[in-house]
Amino acid sequence: MSTTIIVNGIFVTANEADTIVHGCMVFEDDQITYIGEKAPLPLEQYDHVIDGSRKLYMPGLVNTHGHAAMSLLRGYGDDLALQIWLEEKMWPMEAKFTSEDVYWGTSLSVLEMIKSGTTSFVDMYDHMDQVADVVRQSGIRGSLTRGVIGLCPADIQEHKLQEAIRFARDWNGEADGRITTMIAPHAPYTCPPDYIERFVQAAHDLDLPIHTHMSETAREVQANVEQYGARPVEHLEKLGVFTRPTLVAHGVHLTDEEIATLARYDVRVSHNPGSNLKLASGIARVVDLMKAGVKVSLGTDSSASNNNLDMFEEMRLAALIHKGVSGDPVAVPARTALRMGTAIGAESIWLPHTGVLEAGRKADFIAINIDQPHFFPRTDMISHIVYSAAGQDVSDMCVNGRWVMKERSVLTLDEERIQHEFSRRFEALVAR
Amino acid sequence: MSTTIIVNGIFVTANEADTIVHGCMVFEDDQITYIGEKAPLPLEQYDHVIDGSRKLYMPGLVNTHGHAAMSLLRGYGDDLALQIWLEEKMWPMEAKFTSEDVYWGTSLSVLEMIKSGTTSFVDMYDHMDQVADVVRQSGIRGSLTRGVIGLCPADIQEHKLQEAIRFARDWNGEADGRITTMIAPHAPYTCPPDYIERFVQAAHDLDLPIHTHMSETAREVQANVEQYGARPVEHLEKLGVFTRPTLVAHGVHLTDEEIATLARYDVRVSHNPGSNLKLASGIARVVDLMKAGVKVSLGTDSSASNNNLDMFEEMRLAALIHKGVSGDPVAVPARTALRMGTAIGAESIWLPHTGVLEAGRKADFIAINIDQPHFFPRTDMISHIVYSAAGQDVSDMCVNGRWVMKERSVLTLDEERIQHEFSRRFEALVAR
Repeated sequence: MSTTIIVNGIFVTANEADTIVHGCMVFEDDQITYIGEKAPLPLEQYDHVIDGSRKLYMPGLVNTHGHAAMSLLRGYGDDLALQIWLEEKMWPMEAKFTSEDVYWGTSLSVLEMIKSGTTSFVDMYDHMDQVADVVRQSGIRGSLTRGVIGLCPADIQEHKLQEAIRFARDWNGEADGRITTMIAPHAPYTCPPDYIERFVQAAHDLDLPIHTHMSETAREVQANVEQYGARPVEHLEKLGVFTRPTLVAHGVHLTDEEIATLARYDVRVSHNPGSNLKLASGIARVVDLMKAGVKVSLGTDSSASNNNLDMFEEMRLAALIHKGVSGDPVAVPARTALRMGTAIGAESIWLPHTGVLEAGRKADFIAINIDQPHFFPRTDMISHIVYSAAGQDVSDMCVNGRWVMKERSVLTLDEERIQHEFSRRFEALVAR
Repeated sequence: MSTTIIVNGIFVTANEADTIVHGCMVFEDDQITYIGEKAPLPLEQYDHVIDGSRKLYMPGLVNTHGHAAMSLLRGYGDDLALQIWLEEKMWPMEAKFTSEDVYWGTSLSVLEMIKSGTTSFVDMYDHMDQVADVVRQSGIRGSLTRGVIGLCPADIQEHKLQEAIRFARDWNGEADGRITTMIAPHAPYTCPPDYIERFVQAAHDLDLPIHTHMSETAREVQANVEQYGARPVEHLEKLGVFTRPTLVAHGVHLTDEEIATLARYDVRVSHNPGSNLKLASGIARVVDLMKAGVKVSLGTDSSASNNNLDMFEEMRLAALIHKGVSGDPVAVPARTALRMGTAIGAESIWLPHTGVLEAGRKADFIAINIDQPHFFPRTDMISHIVYSAAGQDVSDMCVNGRWVMKERSVLTLDEERIQHEFSRRFEALVAR
């Protein structure tokens, strides 16, 4: 057993009471065992003593929706109308992605996530064995799923479904439990109803949650009504999706009735403010969702539509845009935004043993270098985290009790090699 | 004369053609003399040769509205309704500010601005001699003005006006021209009409521009109509304000007619998206203003309502929110946002010799460390600057041909001392 104590730190716990502790935190192996003002034992009795002066510790950020490999398409065809962007830029390039592209694209994204404080992320993509392999090496947590588009012949549908099942079964619980899996029909508008039902059955068979895109644009909602005679929430409910624990991404265009349905089934919503703004999809009804009791967490979506993976920015956008749009300056306070990015994120992807700094939880945390002008004065540190900080302020990261980054140096991945190989893959991709 | 050449760099010029040069930039004393692919002379003929590999160079950012000393109130009473925030938090604290508070509050903000890439900033506040002194030391540019609230007896009004005139006259053109001044009645709702007219006269006498807050909230517009029978634009027009070159802050609530009036007089608008969102003031009609030909630049407002001074964030917000709110994914493209934060900002505060990297302009520029995952792949660097970067990515700054920061070490100000003295002043302020 290895014991570590951090002394002289400021610990923003992100618990429901918004507790901030000035003092010490102890973790033994992968678990936090103490947090409080005074060290429980003389310091010489710990294997490692860390001076936390000039740092703020908080739970690692939880990114509940994304497609990591799409870093290869960052800045490729920005500021275009949505359909042109998708049809002329994204899809032709993605069709050319190889396993190796996905491996290096995901590696760059995981590096970026580590350097900006994300300790757990959701990834929905293809070539998922590559993604799982990167997560295994990286030291952080991944909630991974093969996202399946079902607009294809029956034999290809069958092949994709089996691949999704095989991946989810093989990798769930791997890497000391850092990898968990989900089942992901891509979206109601990209999967026929009977195909979605087969994913529901698979999720039941494997006892896994479901992740899907839902109601991102007004256009797709309208198409759903025209094609299936129901809006997406009712459509998915009828197909049995919500009989499984479910996380939906976006949920921008929702009626009161749909919000009530999501709350009744405890369906979780990943709010992606940066991506929704950039793609002009609209402003999600986050305040109404939360009032109804829906767990709303935060996601970056891919860096093709964001264009970074900095979760501090998503917390800030969540805290800012709903004030500006509603005219209510107390909509989504900083405290709420912080919990959306940490504790609620962890709950939303079924990692309740992470997301808060308290005894009994996993040692998943980050340190922020607050010895910088934008963290003065030492008034409201939660406000500073949400309204002032950026991912670049993160100095250290520990996941599952193991150090992943120290003083901005990543210990688990080779930064220089990843940037080099990524660039090579990108050049080859464009040339193909 | 001293000559410097930067080689192997990427130069984002921010000119109207969005030119990006891979190569060299030369500056002699305070002026850029060359930018192009090849070095004009053998390298040994330059006094200084700088290797710009792994860096991106761009014009320094121009922050066209703020109140630097209010860093002392960062995070003090966030997430409150506007009137409670103002009446119970901001005003009682500001009333206690001394010259020394303003000195150290401004010092911290200028430090933060340097570390996030701002080379020129507008400041409207009180105790302005202190602010000017900080700008003089810092090496960056300040467009400074004593902001006057006129809701007071005639003798105090007179005293404040004379102070504003004296400051504007004494400091204009000081610090090698890095300090310029303006005349600033605080706002139509805080200055009686006849008092505003006296500021207009003073601006004529001194041949200086006018800076004022205008139409930030719907409530103040309504009050203006009730009190003066006109919306703020017509009101200020009648008072002769626009007979002077004018920069207004916010301009959130504007009619088509008001936009046309602003365009006719070439009134410049400082758009403050972060502050407008946080205070729930609304969404400015930026796209319509620009279509009408109004110069729209960017400002942070104070760190009490933002809560940082990172202009990269303002560029990103400007590029994101107008897409999300309008439903148009091509509203405010990255190119436009970049120019709002640089070239248009410089024009808007009458510094046309800055804001663009080109021969003949002042050597006001910053370097960004692009050797980080969020700047890969090397596709569209303007997109990366606007959608991916943060102030913390700025490595170096040069203003008026002199280095202000190298590898994130500020050369002109004592960072540790400022943070220390600032904290002391804050504690004393809270205790008073």
